[in-house]
Amino acid sequence: MTGPARIGLLGKGTVGSAFHDLVAERAGAVAEVSGRRPEITGVLRRSDGDFEEILAGADIVVELIGGTDPARDYVLRALEAGKHVVTANKQLVAQHGDELFEAARAGGVQLRFEAAVAGAVPVIRVIQESLAATELTKVFGIVNGTTNFILTEMAKTGASFEEVLVRAQELGYAEADPTDDVGGADAAAKMAILARLAFGTPVGLADVSYEGITDIQPDDLAYAKELGLSLKLLGVAERRRGGISVRVFPCFLYGGHPLAPIEGPFNAVMVESPAITEITMSGPGAGGAATATAVLGDVVSILSGEAPVHVTGERLEVVRDVASSFYLHLEVADRPGVLAAVADVLGRNGISVRSVVQRGTGHDARLVMVMHQTPEDAFYTALEELAKLDFMRATPRAIRVIEEEFN
Amino acid sequence: MTGPARIGLLGKGTVGSAFHDLVAERAGAVAEVSGRRPEITGVLRRSDGDFEEILAGADIVVELIGGTDPARDYVLRALEAGKHVVTANKQLVAQHGDELFEAARAGGVQLRFEAAVAGAVPVIRVIQESLAATELTKVFGIVNGTTNFILTEMAKTGASFEEVLVRAQELGYAEADPTDDVGGADAAAKMAILARLAFGTPVGLADVSYEGITDIQPDDLAYAKELGLSLKLLGVAERRRGGISVRVFPCFLYGGHPLAPIEGPFNAVMVESPAITEITMSGPGAGGAATATAVLGDVVSILSGEAPVHVTGERLEVVRDVASSFYLHLEVADRPGVLAAVADVLGRNGISVRSVVQRGTGHDARLVMVMHQTPEDAFYTALEELAKLDFMRATPRAIRVIEEEFN
Repeated sequence: MTGPARIGLLGKGTVGSAFHDLVAERAGAVAEVSGRRPEITGVLRRSDGDFEEILAGADIVVELIGGTDPARDYVLRALEAGKHVVTANKQLVAQHGDELFEAARAGGVQLRFEAAVAGAVPVIRVIQESLAATELTKVFGIVNGTTNFILTEMAKTGASFEEVLVRAQELGYAEADPTDDVGGADAAAKMAILARLAFGTPVGLADVSYEGITDIQPDDLAYAKELGLSLKLLGVAERRRGGISVRVFPCFLYGGHPLAPIEGPFNAVMVESPAITEITMSGPGAGGAATATAVLGDVVSILSGEAPVHVTGERLEVVRDVASSFYLHLEVADRPGVLAAVADVLGRNGISVRSVVQRGTGHDARLVMVMHQTPEDAFYTALEELAKLDFMRATPRAIRVIEEEFN
Repeated sequence: MTGPARIGLLGKGTVGSAFHDLVAERAGAVAEVSGRRPEITGVLRRSDGDFEEILAGADIVVELIGGTDPARDYVLRALEAGKHVVTANKQLVAQHGDELFEAARAGGVQLRFEAAVAGAVPVIRVIQESLAATELTKVFGIVNGTTNFILTEMAKTGASFEEVLVRAQELGYAEADPTDDVGGADAAAKMAILARLAFGTPVGLADVSYEGITDIQPDDLAYAKELGLSLKLLGVAERRRGGISVRVFPCFLYGGHPLAPIEGPFNAVMVESPAITEITMSGPGAGGAATATAVLGDVVSILSGEAPVHVTGERLEVVRDVASSFYLHLEVADRPGVLAAVADVLGRNGISVRSVVQRGTGHDARLVMVMHQTPEDAFYTALEELAKLDFMRATPRAIRVIEEEFN
């Protein structure tokens, strides 16, 4: 390629506008490092612009529309036309990855999507390039800034999920319709992408089990503070017994854990393998400027040379029966024999208790416990039994805990 | 290039042997992602092997000898012969960068050195590729694992520098001759490399001011703990008044700082720019397997395609007159008027005090203070004046403090 690099920009919302400005500002710097000056030669807005015309005049298509329709169609047509594509669209890559990578291979072009996971934090590049020849065992972290902001604020202020959500919307950290973020679907899409790249196996959204944070109560966070725990919405992708497990769930961490200090809208991803122990990367998970920077980084990479298109190996089984530690919150009648009855249910199911806080609240008492690791099936069986005990005043609440302590 | 990728390996110490094993183990995985199977076709040991012969039979030369002589000569000859080079040698890149990058450009080949800074933590790639088009303002962090291990152990155990150094040597975290690590020269070389890449300006070892940790006393760490501080050997490269400043110095951090929890032999690097706020990367800073993984990552990148050779822009002035906060440790006679006299010296030099701990020890007293930020020249003038006061029982000790609090 010679001459200026012609970019067709699809979408001009927050990120699209930031990218437009960034290209204008940094065109000289890009030319210096890559040898070609980027130029936006066409912009497709909802109400304006012709896709075919933009495609014909572009070397690289940058897709910042979001959602899968019509983004999927545009990206496929761009790849088939032999144009490189950069996208920030996690749902697109998570749901249609197989088809897109195949189209990129067939077209002999690059498909890059650094901005789709963890904003400006270069987790995709590190997994795909730096660690390409490393057998990764686990990739996990905080990949949704909205929920991390909400959990941080709930812990700091004692306010309810609903109250903090409103504040997050006012500050621009949550969208008008926050369902995908707070319900875990956004994090699930990102974890599907990370699992696919880390383990070289086809992973789609359907392979990810996920829970969100809508049921988290302020007093869970208050008790957790007493136990030295902080709450995060974690995404965890790991190899397990020859297969893989990919999950998203709210989870308590002990103070020494590298992810415990990640607060507010920041993201952080940890990558583990025997050779490297662990690498942690953190930074702003969203925002127009940070995301646009990641997109421009992908454009620079395309201009600088060839890169391999992601190749999936054999399909690894998705293992769903995993072991976890749990925090358990029980509201019980304050009378003799209650703790013994609870301990009996746990013991019969092979669950051992790590720490307990009990406190009376008049006629009732709160029993807050953290368990040692146990198969999740056994724990959920115990949870059902506990719910049926006659002194139970409310439905038992359970949240996972990462038990390992670091350092 | 087609057929296997022929690698000439120079040096077979700890990292060289780990790399040799890793290539054997991961050759299939590398072939899958890059299209070419790596093969070590020649090994140069101190007592064995012929450089010319190894060079002639190689597509890529991997230099893991260390030091600048004969490594510089070998690397230059390889680049001039049109061979790509991967090296883990920070002194080589820091001291002879200009010459090596020029030779790589002239030869039309790649020179990669991810393992030279922060082991397996991919800071070089992130700065050179992900953030290539971003105007970085500051790069800083913990880039020497030996000193971080020693400072962590001193803080935990209360032992002296000398005692912990012996333990670090026994555990393999410090070399038999630890001078470069504990004196700061190793970190200085790494910061020269990071500053060069981050700011696109020629930076050599001579541009870096550095101090080590050999003078740190156990009671500095004890008092610091009381003030909520932890001690790190920091490397800081930043833009300042149109120029740059590159320094290495021991430094206290407040608990909320993202680098405060980095313990033991781990490294961590933070990158700042207005667009991305900050990105933090951490992981094991050394070790044969981690370093070999970074080297193999560079080999994969070379096999996967072209990458731009680092280009330096104009030479930026190295600014040495910077402002810092300081911790000050004074051993004084325990008598009236001492604090007033100290405060007078500080006040006349425009230095304001942030916190004080005073404690009697019989006839003497310890006065431990943390100052607000002040030009270093003014602080050192005050320090000289303080040293001359007649009630001073020992030479005043000063250590920098990062004042900004995070989150």
